[in-house]
Amino acid sequence: MNKNPLIVAMDLEGVLVPEVWISVAEKTGIEGLRLTTRDISDYSVLMAHRMKLLKEHNLKLKDVQDVIATMDPMPGAVEFVAWLRERYQAVILSDTFYEFASPLMRKLNWPMLFCNSIFQDEQGMVSGYKMRIDNGKRHAVLAFKQLNFRVFAMGDSYNDTAMILEADCGALFRPSEKVVKDFPNLPVMNEYSQVKEAILAFA
Amino acid sequence: MNKNPLIVAMDLEGVLVPEVWISVAEKTGIEGLRLTTRDISDYSVLMAHRMKLLKEHNLKLKDVQDVIATMDPMPGAVEFVAWLRERYQAVILSDTFYEFASPLMRKLNWPMLFCNSIFQDEQGMVSGYKMRIDNGKRHAVLAFKQLNFRVFAMGDSYNDTAMILEADCGALFRPSEKVVKDFPNLPVMNEYSQVKEAILAFA
Repeated sequence: MNKNPLIVAMDLEGVLVPEVWISVAEKTGIEGLRLTTRDISDYSVLMAHRMKLLKEHNLKLKDVQDVIATMDPMPGAVEFVAWLRERYQAVILSDTFYEFASPLMRKLNWPMLFCNSIFQDEQGMVSGYKMRIDNGKRHAVLAFKQLNFRVFAMGDSYNDTAMILEADCGALFRPSEKVVKDFPNLPVMNEYSQVKEAILAFA
Repeated sequence: MNKNPLIVAMDLEGVLVPEVWISVAEKTGIEGLRLTTRDISDYSVLMAHRMKLLKEHNLKLKDVQDVIATMDPMPGAVEFVAWLRERYQAVILSDTFYEFASPLMRKLNWPMLFCNSIFQDEQGMVSGYKMRIDNGKRHAVLAFKQLNFRVFAMGDSYNDTAMILEADCGALFRPSEKVVKDFPNLPVMNEYSQVKEAILAFA
């Protein structure tokens, strides 16, 4: 009865919305944009590769944003986030950029989002980005715990495992087999209904 | 251009919604419930006084919640919060209780809320409460800054001044004359339009 209040911390891409860069690759036909941290593990190398490809194809930040604006949250995600927010506090912890996420946040009714910033030059080309903080997801969970919240965390990939392990409770959501194999002790869930049950049991 | 992203941290009562206990006093006719921290500065003494009055009048937690459910955000508050969330991150830092705030959060479209918990006994009477953390507002602002956010903070009363002073920028919003006199260096704003301008200038 006297438990501390609960914050549910979620990854964005792969958990609530499709992978943004893969959608951009599909809609623009630029295959090289399909690469993710699974292919190029160094994020700064990967981002340099992406910015180079955008430049080569003369795709501006606005063009990427236009593609993202056509994307929709995954089926059930809007209702899941609404269900969470009526009962607990919810925050999205993502490595994406505010400038990308905005149309998707609108469709999710503007939940709180901790992520990063991307920049354009005078020609509107993507010219740089800034990761707000190293290990941002894990640090956010730590901060919530220090503010005496309990935290339930969920995400689909390697960059989510630290926050899930740091949280009081959590799960991998629709992870790849490789992530499951590398983190055999983390619970795996594939449906929002499972997550709801796990949160209700923990809360 | 390379500034860190902005979180706007706001007090709830007196800033976005009317004072809850004063509304409860008005709707129930129990004058003693009008007292605030301005009258009884020790919060635990004040809460003991409130719980005693509720018990004397046989008012249950559900009765208080029913009164709160009839309250509305202040004129312009819903639009102000929507405006903020489309542009920045927004969080409400309040000393109220989740069990009280819920119907008001629904009317504000469920912004993130950091506050406290109140408990009922088997008869449904308010039996206790738990402040999540001492100086919760200031600690939240500090946590956001440590996560490399910039923070704009606004509130109306003494329990907001520490977070406003801790934030990178901020203002008193519709404060009493007494607060203004005691904190002469804090900017004072009385309209949401003023706050928007200040945030745009700072962001």
